[in-house]
Amino acid sequence: MVILGAMAGSQVAVVGAGHVGAAVANALVLLRACDRVILFDRNPARAEGEAWDIGDAIPLLAEMEIRPAGDYADLAASDAVVITVGAINAPGHSRLELLGQNAGIIAAVMRELDRVCPEAVVILVSNPVDVLTRIAIERSTRATHLVMGCGTVLDGARLRHGLGELLGVEQEDVHVYVVGEHGDSSFAVWSSATVGAIPLADFQLPPSTTLPEVQDELSMRIRGRGREIHARKGYTSYGVAAAVARIVRAVVRDEGRIFMVSVRAAEEYGVGDAVLCLPCVVGRAGVARQLVLRLSDDERRMLERSASVLDAAYRSLPVDDGSA
Amino acid sequence: MVILGAMAGSQVAVVGAGHVGAAVANALVLLRACDRVILFDRNPARAEGEAWDIGDAIPLLAEMEIRPAGDYADLAASDAVVITVGAINAPGHSRLELLGQNAGIIAAVMRELDRVCPEAVVILVSNPVDVLTRIAIERSTRATHLVMGCGTVLDGARLRHGLGELLGVEQEDVHVYVVGEHGDSSFAVWSSATVGAIPLADFQLPPSTTLPEVQDELSMRIRGRGREIHARKGYTSYGVAAAVARIVRAVVRDEGRIFMVSVRAAEEYGVGDAVLCLPCVVGRAGVARQLVLRLSDDERRMLERSASVLDAAYRSLPVDDGSA
Amino acid sequence: MVILGAMAGSQVAVVGAGHVGAAVANALVLLRACDRVILFDRNPARAEGEAWDIGDAIPLLAEMEIRPAGDYADLAASDAVVITVGAINAPGHSRLELLGQNAGIIAAVMRELDRVCPEAVVILVSNPVDVLTRIAIERSTRATHLVMGCGTVLDGARLRHGLGELLGVEQEDVHVYVVGEHGDSSFAVWSSATVGAIPLADFQLPPSTTLPEVQDELSMRIRGRGREIHARKGYTSYGVAAAVARIVRAVVRDEGRIFMVSVRAAEEYGVGDAVLCLPCVVGRAGVARQLVLRLSDDERRMLERSASVLDAAYRSLPVDDGSA
Amino acid sequence: MVILGAMAGSQVAVVGAGHVGAAVANALVLLRACDRVILFDRNPARAEGEAWDIGDAIPLLAEMEIRPAGDYADLAASDAVVITVGAINAPGHSRLELLGQNAGIIAAVMRELDRVCPEAVVILVSNPVDVLTRIAIERSTRATHLVMGCGTVLDGARLRHGLGELLGVEQEDVHVYVVGEHGDSSFAVWSSATVGAIPLADFQLPPSTTLPEVQDELSMRIRGRGREIHARKGYTSYGVAAAVARIVRAVVRDEGRIFMVSVRAAEEYGVGDAVLCLPCVVGRAGVARQLVLRLSDDERRMLERSASVLDAAYRSLPVDDGSA
Repeated sequence: MVILGAMAGSQVAVVGAGHVGAAVANALVLLRACDRVILFDRNPARAEGEAWDIGDAIPLLAEMEIRPAGDYADLAASDAVVITVGAINAPGHSRLELLGQNAGIIAAVMRELDRVCPEAVVILVSNPVDVLTRIAIERSTRATHLVMGCGTVLDGARLRHGLGELLGVEQEDVHVYVVGEHGDSSFAVWSSATVGAIPLADFQLPPSTTLPEVQDELSMRIRGRGREIHARKGYTSYGVAAAVARIVRAVVRDEGRIFMVSVRAAEEYGVGDAVLCLPCVVGRAGVARQLVLRLSDDERRMLERSASVLDAAYRSLPVDDGSA
Repeated sequence: MVILGAMAGSQVAVVGAGHVGAAVANALVLLRACDRVILFDRNPARAEGEAWDIGDAIPLLAEMEIRPAGDYADLAASDAVVITVGAINAPGHSRLELLGQNAGIIAAVMRELDRVCPEAVVILVSNPVDVLTRIAIERSTRATHLVMGCGTVLDGARLRHGLGELLGVEQEDVHVYVVGEHGDSSFAVWSSATVGAIPLADFQLPPSTTLPEVQDELSMRIRGRGREIHARKGYTSYGVAAAVARIVRAVVRDEGRIFMVSVRAAEEYGVGDAVLCLPCVVGRAGVARQLVLRLSDDERRMLERSASVLDAAYRSLPVDDGSA
Repeated sequence: MVILGAMAGSQVAVVGAGHVGAAVANALVLLRACDRVILFDRNPARAEGEAWDIGDAIPLLAEMEIRPAGDYADLAASDAVVITVGAINAPGHSRLELLGQNAGIIAAVMRELDRVCPEAVVILVSNPVDVLTRIAIERSTRATHLVMGCGTVLDGARLRHGLGELLGVEQEDVHVYVVGEHGDSSFAVWSSATVGAIPLADFQLPPSTTLPEVQDELSMRIRGRGREIHARKGYTSYGVAAAVARIVRAVVRDEGRIFMVSVRAAEEYGVGDAVLCLPCVVGRAGVARQLVLRLSDDERRMLERSASVLDAAYRSLPVDDGSA
Repeated sequence: MVILGAMAGSQVAVVGAGHVGAAVANALVLLRACDRVILFDRNPARAEGEAWDIGDAIPLLAEMEIRPAGDYADLAASDAVVITVGAINAPGHSRLELLGQNAGIIAAVMRELDRVCPEAVVILVSNPVDVLTRIAIERSTRATHLVMGCGTVLDGARLRHGLGELLGVEQEDVHVYVVGEHGDSSFAVWSSATVGAIPLADFQLPPSTTLPEVQDELSMRIRGRGREIHARKGYTSYGVAAAVARIVRAVVRDEGRIFMVSVRAAEEYGVGDAVLCLPCVVGRAGVARQLVLRLSDDERRMLERSASVLDAAYRSLPVDDGSA
């Protein structure tokens, strides 16, 4: 059933119509991030229920289209695909513990996507996102730059916003990156933080504040935020949905905006094949380019530790997990 | 806990952080319908989980604020309050069957709101919305024009959008109202439908279509849509959330836009004290004005039937339901 | 010289880089009405000076492109062309007196446009706009629905805005048309004015106002406004530029929005071949459809008078004016 | 005459209704940079002609207000005032040559503004803008941070846009400043240019480009652009108007965005009392803060040269110029 008449333009598919997938599709519509949303679920009734509910917003807002789908063939011609399937984090469990359950699912989804939309940019939301992104990269036939995980976009935005607020500067003019493993071991790269074109260290702080204090307070604000929401709600959906919508817009409009997404680390980082969260220029090509940060010794050690944990998790997987 | 620094400006409270309440708060943020959202729930952890999750979108989008609340006192200074509490529709049950459960809840909420924000515009979302709006009007000390139900806004928007699409005319330039009981007995007032300033009957239809066919097809498209979503998803949330955000914006910006909301019918309709869905000018005063439609004989009979059903439902309530 | 890199998407050409043409190009950029603007002038330096000045706004605003042009070939692939060339109104002279000067210019421009962009929608701004639109229609090889004059869009918007303000209703929900000759003999069609789907006559007016008073006051507000601006500034530019940008957006996005543009009157009006301002549905096809108003006897007489004046002006032209 | 009904909110006054002043007022309206614009001119008819023409856009666009004024008293309650009066640049003349003509005018305007709106942020557009800003600062009783010149905002935006385009990075994520005298001796501070949080020098350039080539090409693109427009059009208006609208928005919404405006240089620059273009955080307080750039030796010499030229120009003025 077509809710609205056909429309030309950008198409984004969302795989999985659970809490997160529905929230992503809803955010794509309310933020008008593309022209058409395809909400796919193996259970067509679930896709229909959510797509029709979300679609009711369209006559009240801008012209768009949202369609349910129960067949991967309906995802052909998508510019981007957001993968939200898989078990979700449960409180008290690390993101890595989800891995066994979700690795096979992702490999299977990628096989289908390679068949129906081999040129689309794929954005993974399922957790543990870094390892699943690595699986998606290695199991897919598409170019590596077409696959990314939604990474630490939210943490980075929170940090940037908090720092901008503290300094009285528009957050667009503040740059600081949160890198590493998406989750508890991610960290802010304070050594390269800038305000406009000047180092944060050169920017006059508010009276009676010191840089270490500012860094500690803001780092704490981002740490454990996801876990606090989990503890209360059982999962997160609306925040990550907005982050995905923001990434999707950068892809669809070829914005070239910098986001911290899960990618295979550039050679310069010297962490082998690890896939983790790093600042990248995101556009129509997916990861158009990766920024290579100069890290302090401490930061380098933390990045290596994240890489090593993630690499071990990946290597712990049975070799045939893709056959599921 | 304050998620963002304080900000001046419009404040909207949402009472109830369930599926619908959270979706409303999320839509208010993504559509930037006001400056501050207060998400209230009797269970503070539920309010926190949803408010923090939704609040994660803000650093990625426009400057706004959302706060959880567990105390009605935090709703003071709200320009509008959206009530989403109460049991939700279950498939196979009419909206009227929810009445017994929800009437007492609404009366109790209104008592609290009368205490903390007696000037706020109150928008009811809980079902059966028409009867609950009547209870809210009669139990509240605030002026009648400050209380409305979210009504047939969605049905009306769907109809307007479908008609505009069929005629090749921007939906803003198409006017047709869906009135009566919110639910299965609502109906389109075709006799007064207009395209710009001319009657729909004077507008040349697409080749090989007749007006009765157009009316039948579009009426069917809106009828039962809510029920189909219910059957698949168990409730509706995203669509109604967008409708509420649209109404809220009209209130907060004093737009004077026409929406079909649940109100006490104007005297000219001759249906006594009934509260049902009718087109109204919505602005800072809530229901700034009610449009008085000239109805055909059939339409008048249908309106009277709706009014009589709703009146009977209201009168079936025990007199002391407000003491709950 | 290309100011910005090439960009796909909608292109609008403006013919003439005088006060009006430059203001139109500037409004197209500031309102982001299309993706690319071509500003043409027979004097290339004039086109460059204005296009480069306007183009300086783009790095501060949304992604767009503006290019100067001195050759009609650069107008190929335009979706719409706005014609602003010709002598402008001088105070104390009627718009019809400009006719002799501008008729030949328009015919010559149309010949060029028919050669380089025969499918583009042409919007005339030059005055007297109704007669020049008729010349453009008759001299062009393109379909009649692809040619329109900018008409009484501004007068209509002023009237609608004033009426909405008086009634406390969003102007989008108020419909009243200003028709006839663009200029002193245009008039409001009060008999069909509506608020939402109801006749204005059925809408309760503010206390101690009568409908005739409202109509008189609002009619006066639009009458002579252009002349007052002329008397002070020598010409009008910014207002008409915004009106053109609004029409262009409706064309480029295929909005199907109703505007009062100069068109050949529908047969139902019984005014022969006259071209004058009437409400039309505007979209990608140019004039997608014309609304046929039911007029009161007075209104019909006024329309016939306008048509007859305009027809006489047209017929007064020498037959070979197109050879200029 | 009030064009629209009164509206609460931000008010911006524009002093001077010539080409530049009218273009500024028009940009404020089309970009909806504030709630109310007051267009002042000593010749009330000129203010009326332009304000009424510009105001005609409002019914077609968002709700706003624009009023002409012929009396400084009408500027009371303005949040910001844009000064555009004074003789304009003529081709072949340096901006400094305008000084003698305009210094007295600015001093007189500041006296009036100190009387009617002593708290407003004042933005100078008249040229030579750096020296006139210094006069405005010294002759005004208001705090220094409340006065700024429109500076090298346009040059900086052009450079940032060009660099972003070349690198395939959103211009918001590219930071490079154009400082010094507004005009021919301004220069880009390449030593501190950044892409996101990393130095431009660390960012991989497109194949077969070198950093010096990129810098030369982009520097040339901004150099002399104003002069080329002047040579063709006789003045610039639309570009500077967009720049002013952007600054005004940052003030009115307290954005804390970084712009290169004319200010008294921070002590750290060691250039005495000179007023020249430097990157500043702009918000409700006007110049909320000044960024202190680490300059290369060459850049420092160029800045000192600009400062010395501007200081000499200022000191060449007769002491009593303010009595005009």
